[in-house]
Amino acid sequence: MTDRLRFAPIPASLPATVPFTGPETLERRAGRAFTARLGANENGFGPSPRAIEAMARADAEIWKYGDPDNYELRHALAAHNGVRPENIIIGEGIDGLLGLLVRLVLTPGEVVVTSEGAYPTFNYHVAGFGGVLSKVPYLDDAEDPDALIERAEKTGARLIYFANPDNPMASWHPASRVEAMVAAVPEGALLVLDEAYSEFAPEGTIPEIDPEDERVIRFRTFSKAYGMAGARVGYAIGPARLIAGFDRIRNHFGMNRSAQIGALAALTDQDWLRLTISKVREARAQISAIARKHGLVALPSATNFVAIDCGRDGDFARRLLEGLAGQGIFARMPGVSPQDRCIRVSCGPTVELDRLDAALGVVLAAMGSAAG
Amino acid sequence: MTDRLRFAPIPASLPATVPFTGPETLERRAGRAFTARLGANENGFGPSPRAIEAMARADAEIWKYGDPDNYELRHALAAHNGVRPENIIIGEGIDGLLGLLVRLVLTPGEVVVTSEGAYPTFNYHVAGFGGVLSKVPYLDDAEDPDALIERAEKTGARLIYFANPDNPMASWHPASRVEAMVAAVPEGALLVLDEAYSEFAPEGTIPEIDPEDERVIRFRTFSKAYGMAGARVGYAIGPARLIAGFDRIRNHFGMNRSAQIGALAALTDQDWLRLTISKVREARAQISAIARKHGLVALPSATNFVAIDCGRDGDFARRLLEGLAGQGIFARMPGVSPQDRCIRVSCGPTVELDRLDAALGVVLAAMGSAAG
Repeated sequence: MTDRLRFAPIPASLPATVPFTGPETLERRAGRAFTARLGANENGFGPSPRAIEAMARADAEIWKYGDPDNYELRHALAAHNGVRPENIIIGEGIDGLLGLLVRLVLTPGEVVVTSEGAYPTFNYHVAGFGGVLSKVPYLDDAEDPDALIERAEKTGARLIYFANPDNPMASWHPASRVEAMVAAVPEGALLVLDEAYSEFAPEGTIPEIDPEDERVIRFRTFSKAYGMAGARVGYAIGPARLIAGFDRIRNHFGMNRSAQIGALAALTDQDWLRLTISKVREARAQISAIARKHGLVALPSATNFVAIDCGRDGDFARRLLEGLAGQGIFARMPGVSPQDRCIRVSCGPTVELDRLDAALGVVLAAMGSAAG
Repeated sequence: MTDRLRFAPIPASLPATVPFTGPETLERRAGRAFTARLGANENGFGPSPRAIEAMARADAEIWKYGDPDNYELRHALAAHNGVRPENIIIGEGIDGLLGLLVRLVLTPGEVVVTSEGAYPTFNYHVAGFGGVLSKVPYLDDAEDPDALIERAEKTGARLIYFANPDNPMASWHPASRVEAMVAAVPEGALLVLDEAYSEFAPEGTIPEIDPEDERVIRFRTFSKAYGMAGARVGYAIGPARLIAGFDRIRNHFGMNRSAQIGALAALTDQDWLRLTISKVREARAQISAIARKHGLVALPSATNFVAIDCGRDGDFARRLLEGLAGQGIFARMPGVSPQDRCIRVSCGPTVELDRLDAALGVVLAAMGSAAG
């Protein structure tokens, strides 16, 4: 690299890898389209028709920039969550907001605690702003609050990442456990509570937290239960003084205008949300039944995806996943052992899960491991 | 601020101000809507109907994440610009990409040269990543390439910002002048060539530049001539090794999927683009005539907006702008003297410019300064 194209020190230290390969890239490599898109925890049941209609109407006025204050959506989300608008920051998905949070509060060299195998995009942002990751293992296929807190104490961590429900394992902790974790956040640290899948979780999972509690900032999204992953609308709830900090660094005009309007419409359609949640519950049961039929074990799930324990090692799961891709099925798997004995399948319409069923039969037979 | 909510050193040093106040915020403050939205250089003639239709169709599948590689749009833009896909990075508007560029190449403390009164959002990003701004004045209401280069030499600048055509003055330099500027970029520096308004400029304004020329990275957008500001689609053209660097830090899944698809459709409708450009040319003439009628002077423009010289100082222009806002007209003005003797009016449909005409009559009369 010449002097003129030199990168700043932190970017220069980063690899050119990406957190996730998109399904379109895999399709281009394979030369054909997937027939079941079950790998990215998208919500194939789709958004509220009200949201689709609102976006389509807004598209005709896409010549206008979106409102940089996200005023209407922010106020609606505040009312929906029982907090003040000053406690809410809206951004281009949770991914975008996690990057901003890390940039806002993390001094290069500070430690960030997370779990081995937890959300890679968060780790990508931590590395991207010069943070030092310290990871604790999962316990019984779930994130381990005690270990996270203990590690944060020992390392003097600035941030602790914790997803509830968890991705990629779909496990969850009850609200009381999360509340105890918040209470134990060490002095000087901040808990990053990723609640992307909160709407799918059983009652009693999502804690009551005072939005002004200085120990925690929580993240929500329209990408999962609201079925709007492609719109890029996420938000965070936290203390007003922390939330105000985002205005120092965010891309103020970064939100897609139709997405702002569509998210607002989606929020007003809670009936659709409830319908989606029941469809997801049925799809989880269908995935469990498919797994069982093929001699595999679906783990309990509080999300819109299911981790299927294939009963062998990561190599086996990886070969199974490749076989499924060859049959047109897009799925993913956890990145580290022992969770990588599983594959991760997103909930979707029955027709796609039927294709998963058929493909599993073909692939497991070919691998010589079909259930007897 | 408590220890727990402390910001990282650079964000801690930043003001909580924003580069621009959105028109919606002004409307909320005033308690009524603007009747002419002519302040943000949006394109009120709107996007290609083909783009609107493509977005509306895509909205129904908004449950899918966008392609993180922007493959189709990137390849189409490469063909359109006669460069390789490896020379193109797509992002959430030029604003988003400018932030990424600064983060990618600027070491905190390094100098960035720009013009007094040039694009505030670029300055926002430079400050946001710890850069030190060094500004040179405009010359004859245009950016001054020689002064920019000279200042970059003197300060050992890492980046030089230059918009051609310029915003907020709408002035421009011929391609030959830009090419000479590129040739003179000092060792170790990179020219940030903002060509957001390039499609509106007279022939001979946009230089031929080898995309692998390591002295320059240029920025383009779908927000202006393509009429899709609310979609957030911009791109940069530059050396493949520099472009590849964006993959280390960008929000890979940050693009709105309908916007990706809409931009691709807009690009295929070059007839609509030509029609828009001719409408903008007519609107510029109409704005000039309106200015003349009221004893003001429209400056020449190579963009979709016109700087109107009000012939007095910044206070006068500011009061005029406030008066126009009171009449329902959203416009803006340059931020520094002597350019702040002007107001800046975006091209838009005749009906909105007629409202500007009427409002100017009312406001100037009230200010006791109507042309005799």
